[in-house]
Amino acid sequence: MKDQSDTIPALVADMGRRARAAAAELAYAPAEARNAALQAAGEALVASLPQILEANARDMDYGREKGLSPAMMDRLMLDEARVRAMVEGLEAIAAQPDPVGQVMEEWDQPSGLHIRKVRTPLGVIGVIYESRPNVTADAGALCLKSGNAVILRGGSESFHSSRAIHTALATGLRAAGLPEDAIQLMPTRDREAVAEMLRATQYIDVIVPRGGKGLVGLVQREARVPVFAHLEGICHVYVDAAADPEKAMKVVLNAKTRRTGICGSAECLLVHRDARALGQSIVDALMAQGVEVYAEGLTGTRPATGEDFGKEFLDMKIAARVVDDIDAAIAHIRQFGSQHTEAILTEDQAAADRFFQRIDSAILMHNASTQFADGGEFGMGAEIGIATGKMHARGPVGATQLTSFKYLVSGNGTTRP
Amino acid sequence: MKDQSDTIPALVADMGRRARAAAAELAYAPAEARNAALQAAGEALVASLPQILEANARDMDYGREKGLSPAMMDRLMLDEARVRAMVEGLEAIAAQPDPVGQVMEEWDQPSGLHIRKVRTPLGVIGVIYESRPNVTADAGALCLKSGNAVILRGGSESFHSSRAIHTALATGLRAAGLPEDAIQLMPTRDREAVAEMLRATQYIDVIVPRGGKGLVGLVQREARVPVFAHLEGICHVYVDAAADPEKAMKVVLNAKTRRTGICGSAECLLVHRDARALGQSIVDALMAQGVEVYAEGLTGTRPATGEDFGKEFLDMKIAARVVDDIDAAIAHIRQFGSQHTEAILTEDQAAADRFFQRIDSAILMHNASTQFADGGEFGMGAEIGIATGKMHARGPVGATQLTSFKYLVSGNGTTRP
Repeated sequence: MKDQSDTIPALVADMGRRARAAAAELAYAPAEARNAALQAAGEALVASLPQILEANARDMDYGREKGLSPAMMDRLMLDEARVRAMVEGLEAIAAQPDPVGQVMEEWDQPSGLHIRKVRTPLGVIGVIYESRPNVTADAGALCLKSGNAVILRGGSESFHSSRAIHTALATGLRAAGLPEDAIQLMPTRDREAVAEMLRATQYIDVIVPRGGKGLVGLVQREARVPVFAHLEGICHVYVDAAADPEKAMKVVLNAKTRRTGICGSAECLLVHRDARALGQSIVDALMAQGVEVYAEGLTGTRPATGEDFGKEFLDMKIAARVVDDIDAAIAHIRQFGSQHTEAILTEDQAAADRFFQRIDSAILMHNASTQFADGGEFGMGAEIGIATGKMHARGPVGATQLTSFKYLVSGNGTTRP
Repeated sequence: MKDQSDTIPALVADMGRRARAAAAELAYAPAEARNAALQAAGEALVASLPQILEANARDMDYGREKGLSPAMMDRLMLDEARVRAMVEGLEAIAAQPDPVGQVMEEWDQPSGLHIRKVRTPLGVIGVIYESRPNVTADAGALCLKSGNAVILRGGSESFHSSRAIHTALATGLRAAGLPEDAIQLMPTRDREAVAEMLRATQYIDVIVPRGGKGLVGLVQREARVPVFAHLEGICHVYVDAAADPEKAMKVVLNAKTRRTGICGSAECLLVHRDARALGQSIVDALMAQGVEVYAEGLTGTRPATGEDFGKEFLDMKIAARVVDDIDAAIAHIRQFGSQHTEAILTEDQAAADRFFQRIDSAILMHNASTQFADGGEFGMGAEIGIATGKMHARGPVGATQLTSFKYLVSGNGTTRP
């Protein structure tokens, strides 16, 4: 490490300056070069598979020592299939249409002006994430695709895996003749580096934080840089009085158990009191599949306590509560939700409409599983995550949402009267 | 004033809570009610014309005492024509299509899901502005149109004018049966109220600051709430070697002198060294019209000093500089510009393309006056201002850019494989 990088603020400033320089180059780099870098990075990932798995084994040992939950260990784990999935992700991103320079709208004004609204990169993006090492590849690739430079700060659990993956990304950039500084990885586990990134308004245009409560609190206290919040996914499923029993059973089981470690998994089941019998049979089925149910008004594994509501378990656990009516369900979600994804199960269109209108989450589902909260399932290709904030980006954030725009106006000596 | 409002933090918290409650009501208020409120507010403005002009006279006295520049006094001044223009603004906003609930995109996925992307209000907007009292009407109306509650904090110079205008807006809200708290005006000139708004993350979703250097600094130091920056308009006009002399003369004069107090007025003229003779004749014409020109490489009113570059004069003053080539012009703009609006005057399409690609301002003009930087001239109707940031909103910000969106997803018991 260089002399000026001996302290965390100096390290972040140095990385920031290099990111700014890389961003200026990226803004003119043709789409072909950015896509070639993604392809080459994919090849480098395949070539370095043994090193990646070895690095991941070190991280898994560390995770076991730290006593991570099975869901967390699942997030952390890499095998050949998951590395190949990462490679396919890079290829898919390379194959997507290029957002940079895209003409979003164009029109003529009576003044004689012709106006084009054109997509531009945002500049430098800081991504702060936790255990999943594949975010290193996905986030790095999406930022590159959208013409942005990126500073990645992975979780301390996935430290070695992320470094091995980052090495492959750097190889891809070099192969395509692009600046290696376009994708940088924070070379320290020191948590002060996160705080420093959050304050680096001079170097970072937007922070994308993806994580749980600890990161949420830090971001809320410290962020001076604009934030695309990718925070907790406290997803609710509401079984309405007019729910179809078969659909409800199927969707709730899928929403909770298909994969518990992702942000779109359901964390709380709400049941209309007139659907209590159905709710109980769903709770029984969840328990039969090994899910712990913390229930209020239903018989679960144990009664719910106040702390079970608004909690992101990311595990085979769910809170459950009987509510008086749809408005009580809406009130519960407003109080405990994280504006990520909520589902209503009902055959009553008016109830679905009310739920859709009155809840302000990024994604609302009617008779569908919350596990569909995913850029791929939305047809957007890869995503950097699901934004829970309302500024600029919301819901699944792919390359397109990582851009801004500018207006290009053409006249012919045109003056304003 | 109520007891809990005796201190500024308590005042802002109280206003914030009331704004949140109003925003919840506004989210369901039909477009008809919001438009009726705008119409009624316009009628109330007409009915209270004498009171508004009287209040404005007090502000003008205060401005004269403070020794405001002629351009500032022009911004502050209201007469019957300007009040009527405000009323027309309200009517035009009422007549615009309603952004709230608009389906931006909808599509089907192979999974069977139908996805709609629907516009939603942002929530509570804080607008911090300076001398122009008409912003009270424009900003209040645009926030209402987009289903947002707003807390307005006008400049101390326009304190009485803004209060009189706000009274008319409140009358309109009452007449339409909407909560008066939907549009609140900060009832104090205390600057601490601005700092408090910038920290009110619990109550305010986004701050729209419109102002000069003082406000810029405060926002950069203090803002915890996301910001749509509407900061200085340090607009540049570059006369290229291949400029058409007649167009260049016409456009520069218009860009500087049509109206000097608006953010789209030109503050710096850059001239390619091969167009020096043309540049000099433009400088002579500017001086003949009463503009002070601070020039480097040309003969102006006086030589330029370093402080003249990057300065927002908002007055009959302009900096001017001869540059070696288009890249030097681009470098000057990157160093001194505020990413608002820049124009190139050239018959060389390659030069225009280079200027458009390499400068990252919200608006770039080719052979057109920077004074076209205006929501109306862009065909967007009224604007809350020209955003100079890149997050969420950029360029002219009308009602549509004051919204967010959510995804409404419909299935039929659909689960994710």
